[in-house]
Amino acid sequence: MNYQTEHDCLCWGGVNTRKLAEEYGTPLYVMDEMMIRQAAADHTEAIKNYFGGNGRAVFASKAFCCKEIYRLLKEEEFGADVVSGGELYTAVAAGMDAAKLVFHGNNKTKEELSMAIRYGVGLIVVDNFYELERLNRLAGEEGVTQQILLRIKPGVEAHTHAFIQTGQIDSKFGLALETGEAMEAVKAALAASNLDLQGVHCHIGSQIFDTEPFGLAAKVMVEFMSDVREETGETLPILNLGGGFGISYLPTDDPKPVAEYYATIRKAMEESCNEVAFPMPFLMTEPGRSIVGPAGITLYTIGNVKEIPGVRTYVSVDGGMTDNPRYALYQADYTATVANRMKKAKTEKVTIAGKCCESGDLLQEHMDLQPCTPGDLLAVFATGAYNYSMSSNYNRIPRPAVVFCKEGKSRVVVERETYGDLMRNDY
Amino acid sequence: MNYQTEHDCLCWGGVNTRKLAEEYGTPLYVMDEMMIRQAAADHTEAIKNYFGGNGRAVFASKAFCCKEIYRLLKEEEFGADVVSGGELYTAVAAGMDAAKLVFHGNNKTKEELSMAIRYGVGLIVVDNFYELERLNRLAGEEGVTQQILLRIKPGVEAHTHAFIQTGQIDSKFGLALETGEAMEAVKAALAASNLDLQGVHCHIGSQIFDTEPFGLAAKVMVEFMSDVREETGETLPILNLGGGFGISYLPTDDPKPVAEYYATIRKAMEESCNEVAFPMPFLMTEPGRSIVGPAGITLYTIGNVKEIPGVRTYVSVDGGMTDNPRYALYQADYTATVANRMKKAKTEKVTIAGKCCESGDLLQEHMDLQPCTPGDLLAVFATGAYNYSMSSNYNRIPRPAVVFCKEGKSRVVVERETYGDLMRNDY
Repeated sequence: MNYQTEHDCLCWGGVNTRKLAEEYGTPLYVMDEMMIRQAAADHTEAIKNYFGGNGRAVFASKAFCCKEIYRLLKEEEFGADVVSGGELYTAVAAGMDAAKLVFHGNNKTKEELSMAIRYGVGLIVVDNFYELERLNRLAGEEGVTQQILLRIKPGVEAHTHAFIQTGQIDSKFGLALETGEAMEAVKAALAASNLDLQGVHCHIGSQIFDTEPFGLAAKVMVEFMSDVREETGETLPILNLGGGFGISYLPTDDPKPVAEYYATIRKAMEESCNEVAFPMPFLMTEPGRSIVGPAGITLYTIGNVKEIPGVRTYVSVDGGMTDNPRYALYQADYTATVANRMKKAKTEKVTIAGKCCESGDLLQEHMDLQPCTPGDLLAVFATGAYNYSMSSNYNRIPRPAVVFCKEGKSRVVVERETYGDLMRNDY
Repeated sequence: MNYQTEHDCLCWGGVNTRKLAEEYGTPLYVMDEMMIRQAAADHTEAIKNYFGGNGRAVFASKAFCCKEIYRLLKEEEFGADVVSGGELYTAVAAGMDAAKLVFHGNNKTKEELSMAIRYGVGLIVVDNFYELERLNRLAGEEGVTQQILLRIKPGVEAHTHAFIQTGQIDSKFGLALETGEAMEAVKAALAASNLDLQGVHCHIGSQIFDTEPFGLAAKVMVEFMSDVREETGETLPILNLGGGFGISYLPTDDPKPVAEYYATIRKAMEESCNEVAFPMPFLMTEPGRSIVGPAGITLYTIGNVKEIPGVRTYVSVDGGMTDNPRYALYQADYTATVANRMKKAKTEKVTIAGKCCESGDLLQEHMDLQPCTPGDLLAVFATGAYNYSMSSNYNRIPRPAVVFCKEGKSRVVVERETYGDLMRNDY
């Protein structure tokens, strides 16, 4: 990658990272606003090009949730998928139109379902029979007909890390196709007097590089929608294919451009629809990582550099698994650079250690890096997704601020936590 | 285990868990205050019995940090070990005597070191040469002589999960014995004009069931202290053997009573001291898990129960990896019970799924449980350590409240987070 630099320092969103570190402190989440907007626009445009606008991308909030991201994505014609009362509350507080929200979850609480109905959430994705019955009752109590989708396990598996596979029958999410469970749920949903079944949803995995699994899922789902028409007479209008669009964490990662996913989906849907004379459904997708992931970096100040002869070199930073638990959880890959030594070659092989009192608190092992010394600035790439949103206060470490940069200007969108914040709920 | 029950419901700290769930909601962290006090007293008493009071246990705050735990442990004659500015801030805010605090970390920031000096922290455990030099300079700037220990890697490994091993040479923590690094650091510390080297520290791992590794570590460390005397003429007064005292997560787990660890340590120290005519050091230990782990349970409301024929049964609860990430991180073992069906036998084999939109959000797989239905109450045992302290707001899920129970009475010590809390730092 060719990054913009200034005086040997990495720039992000046109801002010198050394200046960002000085102004806001470290660790610091930094996001390039134009990269987020461009990634969102790529989805919106692909939907225009391949579906004539007969579709909508909704942002998977769990990748990165704060008020500002909703304001920004609203401007990009996005809706949002929310998975909890907290995400719903934040989206609505930020001015998202509740009608453009999709509410997910394998175990939404009664309070969350009531809240979603009262807020006027556009689509609630019903995961199971228990929820179907409960939602129907709650909608009745509120005097509302609630539009829903049903979450289906299409039996399509995408090649990805075992922990982040979904869609197969052994999943806590959704209703299985092959056992007849999905069809049974469709019939129950159609019979539910306070629910309006609008379509079906599936999610085949995360961080998927091939377009093919999406095409396969589209085919399976259209065939199911055709089966539904045959068995019930109902032509469901919406097909939501979820998210999972891969991004590049390593130079060897090679995700397809977003447009290619949509091209594959379009082709598969068209073929399947033509085969059974089914009208083209309204397409929904739920990108999260692909919208915010590449736009984010995390800046750390390097502290102690511990060379253990014949073993390895630990480069310690002032953050770690508290702001990025993905290596501890999944041994996730990342690349990084010494942000104030961009002209130096990456001649060292190092392990990046966090500051938590926990041996597993590493950000990456055996990573190529420039030579560095205490006080240098480390930038870890592609941390825009599933970093801030998964952050914790383990070791009572405050969460970093989130700064958006655009055309050489920076602004705080989430304030750094203070020690006082950490104690706020303590008696 | 024989648990106290009332009307078929589990009681904790003498309080009916059904009533706790009704009063405070779920998920809920519940801790038996007397179990915490008793566990702390076990350490204090063992130090009296085996060391004639010539020692002190300090609580490893990272296991569970909030103001109330410090107030309570202060009454049990405990100090605390803190690993960040945030833990230090909380301990002092709760009234802990800073002189009884031990400050750890592989990469303490400059701000944290300055804060520790200004607060009057009793012992700073210096991890590396860079920190030694920096701390000496900072203490000089503050006009203080700071008492320190040095963190040593004794080369003793305890049998435990690979992720939570420490003490071996390939660790981000401490100074290696066998390479001569530790002795070199001792000499540098003795030469540092603003530092007062009081002794040495090691930590050989977590969740250790055998007493033997502690004895071995004690032997190695005393021998090192004797070597230090020989090489430098200094007789260091303090030996801190860290934590790692195991607790029972499963019925098959068989940790030794706390007193046995101290008996083994005493014996090893005495033998080693006698061998080289070294005066018995002041012993410090750093129990965390063993103080708060067994005292805590987490209460969840059971939602959807998803039976997948021939595959498995998922029992979904209203919390998950956000309040307990230890299964996602380490595949940690837990047992649980349906708290309102205590008389029923555990005839089912289930997987407990959290409510996060993430396939890896499980609390336990293939666990024995009573038959249950939505609305039942699940109690997961031994969640007092590394649950609340490791909790996150992933999926924008608010953190549960923490309730202490004692003699049939309950009180909130940490308030449940609100949706508003989650947005507090958002612009």
